[in-house]
Amino acid sequence: MTDLIQMGQRAEAAKYQLQKVSEDEKNAALRRAAELLKERREELLAANAEDIAAGEAGGMHPGLLDRLRLTDARIDAMAEGLLQIVVLPDCIGEVLERFDRPNGLHIEKRRVPLGVIGIIYESRPNVTADAFGLCFKTGNAVILKGGSDAIHSNIAITAVLREALRQSGVTEDAVQLIEDTDRSVTAQLMKLNQYVDVLIPRGNAGLIRSVMENSTIPVIETGTGNCHVYVDKAADLDMAAEIIINAKTQRIGVCNACESLVVHRDVKDAFLPVMAERLREKNVEMRGDEETCGLILDCVPAVPEDYGRECLDYIISIKTVDSLEDAIAHINQYGTKHSECIITADADAAERFLNEVDAACVYVNASTRFTDGFEFGFGAEIGISTQKLHARGPMGLKELTSYKYTVEGNGQVRG
Amino acid sequence: MTDLIQMGQRAEAAKYQLQKVSEDEKNAALRRAAELLKERREELLAANAEDIAAGEAGGMHPGLLDRLRLTDARIDAMAEGLLQIVVLPDCIGEVLERFDRPNGLHIEKRRVPLGVIGIIYESRPNVTADAFGLCFKTGNAVILKGGSDAIHSNIAITAVLREALRQSGVTEDAVQLIEDTDRSVTAQLMKLNQYVDVLIPRGNAGLIRSVMENSTIPVIETGTGNCHVYVDKAADLDMAAEIIINAKTQRIGVCNACESLVVHRDVKDAFLPVMAERLREKNVEMRGDEETCGLILDCVPAVPEDYGRECLDYIISIKTVDSLEDAIAHINQYGTKHSECIITADADAAERFLNEVDAACVYVNASTRFTDGFEFGFGAEIGISTQKLHARGPMGLKELTSYKYTVEGNGQVRG
Repeated sequence: MTDLIQMGQRAEAAKYQLQKVSEDEKNAALRRAAELLKERREELLAANAEDIAAGEAGGMHPGLLDRLRLTDARIDAMAEGLLQIVVLPDCIGEVLERFDRPNGLHIEKRRVPLGVIGIIYESRPNVTADAFGLCFKTGNAVILKGGSDAIHSNIAITAVLREALRQSGVTEDAVQLIEDTDRSVTAQLMKLNQYVDVLIPRGNAGLIRSVMENSTIPVIETGTGNCHVYVDKAADLDMAAEIIINAKTQRIGVCNACESLVVHRDVKDAFLPVMAERLREKNVEMRGDEETCGLILDCVPAVPEDYGRECLDYIISIKTVDSLEDAIAHINQYGTKHSECIITADADAAERFLNEVDAACVYVNASTRFTDGFEFGFGAEIGISTQKLHARGPMGLKELTSYKYTVEGNGQVRG
Repeated sequence: MTDLIQMGQRAEAAKYQLQKVSEDEKNAALRRAAELLKERREELLAANAEDIAAGEAGGMHPGLLDRLRLTDARIDAMAEGLLQIVVLPDCIGEVLERFDRPNGLHIEKRRVPLGVIGIIYESRPNVTADAFGLCFKTGNAVILKGGSDAIHSNIAITAVLREALRQSGVTEDAVQLIEDTDRSVTAQLMKLNQYVDVLIPRGNAGLIRSVMENSTIPVIETGTGNCHVYVDKAADLDMAAEIIINAKTQRIGVCNACESLVVHRDVKDAFLPVMAERLREKNVEMRGDEETCGLILDCVPAVPEDYGRECLDYIISIKTVDSLEDAIAHINQYGTKHSECIITADADAAERFLNEVDAACVYVNASTRFTDGFEFGFGAEIGISTQKLHARGPMGLKELTSYKYTVEGNGQVRG
């Protein structure tokens, strides 16, 4: 049985020690970790082979097996990921605001680490190195709880990361892995308020919902994307088709993929048959309302659940609307506040869509697939927030920080 | 039985309508609400008399009765509070960042309302108007759940606010009060994720803990303050005494009051007897460690719980330490991450304290009582956050907002 209290105490001690580690020292440790991942690749591959063997024996789905597998290229990519974090600024200590009060108090708002971050994730071993790198660069201690299917890989990767920290003179408790694969330990982690400042779940909708429902620690909700593309009456229809094909099919199983198409009645006759042809070429199943089915013979009649679901599959729902207003209402009803797009040449319609659709990222004439920390130029990403507290949309390094107010006086008391 | 689903749907509809209400329209509605509170004061006083009578009949503590009571002056203060919010900028629509990507995408980070805010609070009727004003100014719809002891007062105040909205041509569902005083309704509200974006509890530590533990909606934790003043070996001891008397006794029952005194051994002989005399004059009970008790004869020996508790009373705990490092460790162990202070003339010690103490507000040579939205110059305050997500320390209007990314392109797709 893992003693989470002890782990929490070690993380807390590490959090305070990390405050005294300079950016150069952090970068040196990240570089050493990148080297060591490559140097010890045989060990990592051997541990991963155990997970793969167990997965195969248990009849794991080939897609999941692929996600679980480490290869030379993937180990190189993990190392490269850490080196990419080295070149980003850590932001810690940055003065976000400074002001003086009439009574002479000098107040600064300074960027600080969140403290101790807990990350609960699925069976992708690369997340272990990736999450460590982002948390460590921003001065946070991290407690990792990975999927049980990847436990041998995660133990091996974490051992390498801790060794790199030790060699760099930094507390190895900056990263700790919960090795106990019992689910009750995850439940315990979600109540460890005394030591953990923030929990970030990364994975499927069920995992994220479970953490939202059971955690007493503040959570950053990530992920689910039931993203729409709305083709306005003033749309460039060729552009619309290109964007929809990209948003729907460029990568099917990701949260920023398009799941639903909304089409203004004025353009449905000209647009839908052409669009259907393009979707058919990519083997995308269409599920639409009555008007859509009237125009596309192989379109399956949609039920309301089709509009509310993130399929992550070669399926798209289609809805026709009478107006921009109806499109916005439909999207606000069924969307998951992730990424939503309008295709239009009408600047007023575009601005209204940008203002009135409630989502982390709202697009005009571009693919929803750009909702991504790297595509936004953040240089890193820990996830896409779909909640409104703290951070919204792609989260990079800054989103792993908080702030404190420093108040300097010369004896001021309150009257 | 209150139908919270319907209430949530009305709040959601109001949230979208509020996006189209201009700042001028919001200010006009706030002014009308201020007028109407004064015009209908007899009605408010009559409703409040019912609550007071019930409280007296139930043997309510005089302090709580006083908090519950409305007077002409308090109604004027509620109205004045709304007028103070009128002059503050609503911040909504502000572009926080704008940048262009190499592929031509133009990205803006725009400030938006949080959406629907739920506020759970105790029996202070003025919070009803105050919370509405702050949420409304920032374009948020609010669902209020006040203490059952103030239910008649809250119903009357909310009716006035809704009437003012109606007269101003704004949806009255911008503010809704849960009139059902059954606790099960509060439990239901804490799970209303589909409609409520954020919950803010305002009240005692038990209320806040209960919301943190039971809510599946993101919560902003406010309040508990076990605040320390540390008297460094390089302290101006007269200044230290003035600040401690102010922080401890200027107002006893507030979260930014000092609860604990930490003293460097080098100055304890010179400082503690003098400080004890000042505290005795204010009838403050002292509870200290062995060294403190050796210097202050009427000091009660402290047990560890004395260092960990927010007393909100005429009681102070006292701890002597060997070093700045020990002081920081003690504060980080027992503090509630609210407000912590060092008294010192040593700039290095001050900077180390500011950096290493983990709290929302860290002070050098000033009273912890300044942790307050008005004292910080925010012009308003919805509470003091003691968590690290989203907002930390005093929260004004900006802290009731989120942001969205708008992404404008001309046909970009992801490669």
